[in-house]
This record gives sequence, structure tokens and C-alpha cells, in this order.
Amino acid sequence: MPTLPVFGAEEIQDATTPQLVLDTVRDALIAHAEGRTSVPPPLSMEFPEADGDCHVKAGRITGTPDFAIKVATSFYGNPALGLPSSHGLICVVSARTGEVRAILDDRGLLTAVRTAACGALVTHAMARPDADTLGVFGTGEQARLQALWLSRLRPLSRVLVHGRTPETTRAACDWLVAQHRLPAQPATAQEAAGADIVVTTTPATTPVLDAAHVREGTHVTGIGTDMPHKNELPAPLFGRATVIATDDHAQCLDHGDFGNAVRSATTTADSDTPAGLLLKTPLARPPAAITVADLTGVGAVDAALASAVLNLLLREEAEG
Amino acid sequence: MPTLPVFGAEEIQDATTPQLVLDTVRDALIAHAEGRTSVPPPLSMEFPEADGDCHVKAGRITGTPDFAIKVATSFYGNPALGLPSSHGLICVVSARTGEVRAILDDRGLLTAVRTAACGALVTHAMARPDADTLGVFGTGEQARLQALWLSRLRPLSRVLVHGRTPETTRAACDWLVAQHRLPAQPATAQEAAGADIVVTTTPATTPVLDAAHVREGTHVTGIGTDMPHKNELPAPLFGRATVIATDDHAQCLDHGDFGNAVRSATTTADSDTPAGLLLKTPLARPPAAITVADLTGVGAVDAALASAVLNLLLREEAEG
Repeated sequence: MPTLPVFGAEEIQDATTPQLVLDTVRDALIAHAEGRTSVPPPLSMEFPEADGDCHVKAGRITGTPDFAIKVATSFYGNPALGLPSSHGLICVVSARTGEVRAILDDRGLLTAVRTAACGALVTHAMARPDADTLGVFGTGEQARLQALWLSRLRPLSRVLVHGRTPETTRAACDWLVAQHRLPAQPATAQEAAGADIVVTTTPATTPVLDAAHVREGTHVTGIGTDMPHKNELPAPLFGRATVIATDDHAQCLDHGDFGNAVRSATTTADSDTPAGLLLKTPLARPPAAITVADLTGVGAVDAALASAVLNLLLREEAEG
Repeated sequence: MPTLPVFGAEEIQDATTPQLVLDTVRDALIAHAEGRTSVPPPLSMEFPEADGDCHVKAGRITGTPDFAIKVATSFYGNPALGLPSSHGLICVVSARTGEVRAILDDRGLLTAVRTAACGALVTHAMARPDADTLGVFGTGEQARLQALWLSRLRPLSRVLVHGRTPETTRAACDWLVAQHRLPAQPATAQEAAGADIVVTTTPATTPVLDAAHVREGTHVTGIGTDMPHKNELPAPLFGRATVIATDDHAQCLDHGDFGNAVRSATTTADSDTPAGLLLKTPLARPPAAITVADLTGVGAVDAALASAVLNLLLREEAEG
């Protein structure tokens, strides 16, 4: 008789309220910025014959009762088989006894919402208080979620979406308008780059916008660059930035656009600020400043969110 | 509704027949020796405040449909809390789509039997055909299993058990006699080291036997040395050996007794043979030769066994 609790994606979705996610992710990003986390190097496997890979990441906030181990696979031939390309689950483990508390069979849901919440929290903290137009580069699930979650933190008067094709751009706008009543519309790259706030969430390997199109007073957050060969934000943008924030200095230097900019010498390796600190102490920004955030994802945030969601699920179960 | 199958320790135990384990482990050790496996560097976390650690290992035999990710924790304060010190589970994942096929909540069972089977197979392949006395150093579960599984491959006329205390030695002998009718008896270190076959399965950090007590014609297998600071087999034993086998050259060099012997210069880093090859092609050993096997555990063997057990469990389920 298996006694290991397994929670499925639907019940996890129900438990994952925006407030729980935002509170948990905010605290975890601050803890990470303050050095109160441990995140070991991930384990990776490649499956070239199936165009697939598997990454196992773990993390913990020091002193908390749980840690999490996240298994995530991406097999890029799956859509042709009628399957999602991404799969995975999270093991929540007691950091006091090593017992596996539960499996969250979340199908990537928690990673999607923590990425959205990290982006929204950091973007909101860094953008001008009156900034209310958003340019979105990318049209996939995470691009849409970035707009949605930011709209939960501040009003948006316009969402300018730029995608690679008119069809995908239209589909993203339709989703934002129909599902969430956001004022989304297709835009050129120049129009999207000219918004008060710009968020890039693409798998691009060359910059998706021209630094010259970004106006003074703009905040730009890059989400999509998570491997050394990827690149969304142009290096000159980092050269123009007054404040550069990274969620994890070493990771962003290794495989984020911050690292790309450092290697092209438009900024220096010591020019960044931990993003979590800006959530704690509001940023004093001159009105004409350009600010940039490079976010690559922090394993301790996954751990904190998985633990918080599990505690809620177990409490709900106990209360029947 | 969770749809992820979870199998518990009892049903896994029922499915794990010695023949299935021996066949699967044998094939996997051969595949590993022939370079047909992939085993990424493991992920590790430490929990010093709870005297605990967590290791995540993965592996695959090239071309097979599944791979496995094994989570194993050891928290050494657990027995004082009335809990086992080790916990863990295995995720079996499709190497074709990345989907998690099932969780084997085996509580370390499969690791224990694959370690026992690896030891027994390699020991049996390397020992003289007429060797029938066994010296066992160590009295824990794995020490007992080494004797039991070897007895499944060849008759043993005597099992000489040497432990750190008379009580643990007595308990191990009682288990072997009462549960498995093996001719086990307590022995001094010199007596155990003088057997035809010697197996060491301890957490020792200094050698448990004197190389001078090992007779010509003896085979010795070391199981317990799995970290750089551990040491069971004396370096001079490797100097006397005609054949040295390792289950994984790099691992044994890094944290096995083979590595300890190389660093003490009693043998050289190129003196070992892949253990899996000796399972395929019988060893031609002069009667007076001393042979040594250093086994540190191979992730691809876990993967092969987890996949084989899962297939059996799913077949049994389908057949009702």
C-alpha cells in the first residue's frame, strides 16, 4: 500500500492562489538575495535521439522545514506525438528527517506561476510608479502570464504584444482580452520597445528589440534567456541602464543576458544588484533612468512555493 | 485527480524476484562496462544542523525506453527519533517523451538488492570455482545480503562473520542461520580474512583487515567504501592482486578503495578491469592469484532495475 501522498495538477491549481504565490515568492527572493538559501548545482541529462533533456534542480531556504527537488523534462518532438513537450514533478522533502512528504504532480504549473510571480514582483518594484503601458515580447504561456501577473500588481492602460507571427500575436492578445480583460493589442517591435515597461519572454538567440527604441524612464525585464546560447536583450541596453538587477548573480552571469552584456563589455560583472533586495527596499530611480532586470529562475523559490502549496493542500485535506 | 502511479515497498518487494534482479543487474553491469550507459554527475545537498544529506542520482542504459532518477536521503539523527535513517524513492521516466511513468516508493529496497546482486555477481565471477568459504566484514543489512545473494550463486560451506561487537556479529549470524539456513558463525578478523572469498561491507574509515592475512587464491570484494574519507581494504592488498576490477573506473578512483590504493602508490590508476566485462568473459585466474573487486554503485544499474520492476508491476496490474 503506497502511503506517499501525490497531489495532481488540478488540486494544486486550486490551492495556488495569487496571494499565496506572491507572498511566498517575494519572501523567497528576499531570502535568496540575503544569502539565506542553498541551491546545489543541478543534474542534467540529454536525450539527443528524442530531442529531449531532463533537469533536476533542488533548493532550500535556510532554516525552513522542507526542501524541494524538481524534475523537469522537455522533449521537443512531443507535440508531433500529440503530447505536451514539458513534463515533471516536485518532491517535497523534510529537511529535518529526509522523509519525502509528498509528490506534487503539477505538470510544470508551479514553475510557470513562480516565474510569472518573480517577473511581476521585480518588474513592479523597479518600474516607475506611474508606468502603465507594457510591451510584451513573446506570445507563449509565460509571456501571457507575465502580463497577467503584472496586472495584478498595478493597472495597465495598454499591453503591446509583439510576436514572431501575426497569428501567435493575435492568439496571445485574444487570451489576454477575453480571459482577463486586459487592454492587449498587437504591436511592432518598435512600439512594444517604446512602452513604459518592457518584458521579454521568448526563446530568442539574438536580441528581440533595439536598445535605441527603449525610451528614458523605461524598465525592462528579461525572462527568456536561460541558457548560454540564448539572448533576448541587446547588450547596449545594459550599457544605458542605471540599475541592473539579477535574481542570481552567478546564474545570470553564466547563462543570462547580464552575462551576454558583460562578455560584450557593455557592462561589468559587478554592476548588478540582487533583485530580492529591491523587493525589500524600494528603488529610488531618477525619472529618466533606464532599469533592467535579468531573471534566470532560483531553485529556492521553487522549494518555498512547493512547501507552501503542500502545507495548504494538507491543511485542506485534514479539514475535509 | 492524480494519475501518477505510485508503487509501495511491499508490492515492489513481491515483484523483485532474485532471478529478475540478477539478470537485470548482470546485463546493466555489462552495458556499463561496454560504455552503453549515461550517468550524469549527481546532485547533493547537506543539512548539517540535522546531520543529514540528500543525493539525487540518475542513469540510463543507452537505447532503453526509460531512465531513472533516484532520490536518497540519510539523516543520522533519525534513529533517536524512532525513524529509519534512510529514505528515498525512484522516478521512472520515459526516455522517449520525458513523461514520469511511475514513482517507486521503495524505501531503499531496490538500492539494497542491486548492491547485493552486483556484489554477488562480481564476487562469483572472480572467485575460484571451488571457493566455498566466505569471510564477511560487517553485520548490517547489506553485509547480510552479500552473504545471502552469493549463496544463491554458489554453495557456501562456511560463512565467517566479523563485526565490531559480539552482539551485532551474533545477530547477523542468527539471521543468516535462522532465516536462510546459511552456515554462519562469528569469527576473528584473521579468520574471516583467511576465507576463500572475503567481502567487506562496513562504514570503516581505516582498513578492516590485514593484507597479510589474505591467502593466495583468495578473492576480495569491497562494497562499503563509497566516499573519499572511507576505507575498508588495505592498500597492500591491491599491490598483491593479479586482477583488480572496478564497477566504475572514475568513481572507484575518486571515492573507492581502488583510489585509496592508487594514491598510496600500491597500484596504478590504469591497473583495473571493468567488472562488467568479467561477467561476460570468465576470468582465467592462476590458482595462487589474489583478485580484488572495488564496487561503488552504478546509476545505470538502478535505472535498469527500476524499469524492469516497474514493467513487471504494470503487467501484473494489467493482468489483475
